[in-house]
Amino acid sequence: MRLSRYFMPILKENPKEAEIVSHRLMLRAGMVRQQSQGIYSWLPLGKKVLDKVNAIIREEQNRAGAVELLMPTLQSAELWQESGRYEAYGKEMLRIKDRQERPMLYGPTNEEMVTDIFRSYVKSYKNLPLNLYHIQLKFRDEIRPRFGTMRSREFLMKDAYSFDMTREDAIHSYNKMFVAYLRTFARLGMRAIPMRADTGPIGGNHSHEFIILAETGESEVFSHKAFTDFDIPAETTDFDDVAGLQAIFDKWTSVYAATSEMHDEAAFNAIPDTDRLSARGIEVGHIFYFGTKYSEPMGAKVQGPDGKEHPVHMGSYGIGPTRLVPAIIEASHDENGIIWPESVAPFDVVVINMKPGDAACDTLSEKLYASLKNAGKDVLYDDTDDRAGTKFATADLIGVPVQIIVGPRSAAVGEVEVKDRKTGAREVMTLEAALNRATG
Amino acid sequence: MRLSRYFMPILKENPKEAEIVSHRLMLRAGMVRQQSQGIYSWLPLGKKVLDKVNAIIREEQNRAGAVELLMPTLQSAELWQESGRYEAYGKEMLRIKDRQERPMLYGPTNEEMVTDIFRSYVKSYKNLPLNLYHIQLKFRDEIRPRFGTMRSREFLMKDAYSFDMTREDAIHSYNKMFVAYLRTFARLGMRAIPMRADTGPIGGNHSHEFIILAETGESEVFSHKAFTDFDIPAETTDFDDVAGLQAIFDKWTSVYAATSEMHDEAAFNAIPDTDRLSARGIEVGHIFYFGTKYSEPMGAKVQGPDGKEHPVHMGSYGIGPTRLVPAIIEASHDENGIIWPESVAPFDVVVINMKPGDAACDTLSEKLYASLKNAGKDVLYDDTDDRAGTKFATADLIGVPVQIIVGPRSAAVGEVEVKDRKTGAREVMTLEAALNRATG
Repeated sequence: MRLSRYFMPILKENPKEAEIVSHRLMLRAGMVRQQSQGIYSWLPLGKKVLDKVNAIIREEQNRAGAVELLMPTLQSAELWQESGRYEAYGKEMLRIKDRQERPMLYGPTNEEMVTDIFRSYVKSYKNLPLNLYHIQLKFRDEIRPRFGTMRSREFLMKDAYSFDMTREDAIHSYNKMFVAYLRTFARLGMRAIPMRADTGPIGGNHSHEFIILAETGESEVFSHKAFTDFDIPAETTDFDDVAGLQAIFDKWTSVYAATSEMHDEAAFNAIPDTDRLSARGIEVGHIFYFGTKYSEPMGAKVQGPDGKEHPVHMGSYGIGPTRLVPAIIEASHDENGIIWPESVAPFDVVVINMKPGDAACDTLSEKLYASLKNAGKDVLYDDTDDRAGTKFATADLIGVPVQIIVGPRSAAVGEVEVKDRKTGAREVMTLEAALNRATG
Repeated sequence: MRLSRYFMPILKENPKEAEIVSHRLMLRAGMVRQQSQGIYSWLPLGKKVLDKVNAIIREEQNRAGAVELLMPTLQSAELWQESGRYEAYGKEMLRIKDRQERPMLYGPTNEEMVTDIFRSYVKSYKNLPLNLYHIQLKFRDEIRPRFGTMRSREFLMKDAYSFDMTREDAIHSYNKMFVAYLRTFARLGMRAIPMRADTGPIGGNHSHEFIILAETGESEVFSHKAFTDFDIPAETTDFDDVAGLQAIFDKWTSVYAATSEMHDEAAFNAIPDTDRLSARGIEVGHIFYFGTKYSEPMGAKVQGPDGKEHPVHMGSYGIGPTRLVPAIIEASHDENGIIWPESVAPFDVVVINMKPGDAACDTLSEKLYASLKNAGKDVLYDDTDDRAGTKFATADLIGVPVQIIVGPRSAAVGEVEVKDRKTGAREVMTLEAALNRATG
């Protein structure tokens, strides 16, 4: 992408409304723009990161056997009356009447709708297990949206829903998502700690939040420090291996970890002083097993091997992509801007032409741009007339992992400078060496 | 994907509510499900087709220089009061009040919001041309939603918005989208005819609808038959070539074509009898140039080379992916089901194991499944216990272009049968030959 043809509105001033670093950097880098209170546009740079986050979430959901569909944002109130949540959900639910005066709502979550889909089609235990997910907009009318897309009203959520014949099978489905979540967060460059959690309005009796540590987190968390040494489950993990997944779950829940709502002071104090971790964190995922809470009232039953009808055991599993983007920034930035993990960087590499119009600079830059694109890299080519200082500041701010700087003196001898965003290390090398570095 | 682990609820009976063939086939193939009047879930098979349609739209938008972002679904009423459309839009606009009683709406289109984004950041003609697009849900509260996702209330739209300094530049931006649309529909396996169109609530004075011919179309259209011979612009088209794009536009608008609203009986009758085409069609895209209709009232101005401020010239360009899917089916099906163009088929190939449990069938099927996946193909593997007749009917119904049938007799000698969905031709061949055929 040529920067001269892109839309990346960089702000020079620190926006006053931003209280936390991720919000400030997302505004300054032109990633998002607030349209109404707690409602954001994702500008092109932000949209690219969001797409990459979604792609990783999708890959790990599919690997764990979940199947993607797309449910609508607007739901009929009737469904929620069936489950009993229509009155219970409170003011966070955005209630709407259409032109026929039918009561509708903007879905804050999809347990009811997916249960309705399930009961319409699935009649036998032979079609289980089943896990259906979508990545779709939700709306929760928070009284105090804040921190940019970290706590917004219209937001994107990946929500998966599992259906099983028995509690035992449902726990296996739960463990699949538990492992998928560990892998997802690791691939996003973050270490998330699963913590026993309160189930809130979703309900149920078995639930974990995934928390990443950050000073600006809204949750107070307490855990054993052992988590930093636990292995992330491999890509080759067999999700059909019931005992194997249970072992991973057991390992990751073998030491103390809880949010303040579930905190057990005595258990925490039993941990040796030096292993105790008391910090702030950001909730980036939440999984629930809630048995037959929705299948009973909504009549989602299957015929079992015994020939009788049984309500299915369900779980739900949420990740918020529009919250993950700022969470990644909270975990990875410096005074100059964002430092993206390679997996979600909006561009893999930026080619900075220091002097557009200079023949050597233009030739070398164009050659780099074309070669990197041919090598399958996502390249930003800064071909603008901005001053060198502005170009460097922008490249650092937007956090692209590799910067290739093409200046007139070195270009004249076929050389460029390669800068690593994370370490700040710079090295002068030939064009070929730079290509190898950026595609290696 | 193993069918035993997929969610593809095939309906055996013809659904009564479906009036047109695409709606009937989408319901029968388990592609969509109505959740409320005119509001649909896209089940996994439908979601896959929708994703492929979106990917082609996106590629052609990017090729034409448009830049993707993502605006939210909910908009503040204030923006629409600025443009004057809040009162004018009528009952199709879904009006909402949030918990603070602030008037909002579910966006039926995004001219106001994108103009607001533009005016917030772009101040100089040097940053033009600019074309911003998104693929986002819209809501229009139609009094009579029907024909499944062909005319639904919540639907997906790709809407692009161009900004230029002058009318002349804006016409070039318009031509870019005109060419991108011709390419997009062709890649989706359809020939769309651009027709002079009424501008409706979007406004403006230069507008074309893209219509594909189908008996079930809601529009009555009149055109010269020459369109069937016109060349689709090549992938290598230079979108910066002002004269080149204008020549393509001129060619495609050189003969008569109009919807009934714009029909000129006299002009039509001037066409020789044998070249006249009077038919029904489906609108699959609509493009508008509307000058300063929004930029004037909303103050979207840039500084020109003359140092003065000028309101920008704008256009908007819509394609409905959730309508395109049924439109493709209307144009491509037979009595047994859907016949997908390869470009958007939910799977490239289906491997039908006629006798799961038979060692030769299982071995050969698994080998085919693994090899095709390794070759980058999107494969459905029917490993279910259904009867052979059911499997064949399902494969035809869902319209996967290539079927590889693994039966016990031929499997014993290492052979399989390959069926072409479109022609119905079947051929027995070795496993290797079948692999070559399916990956060739």
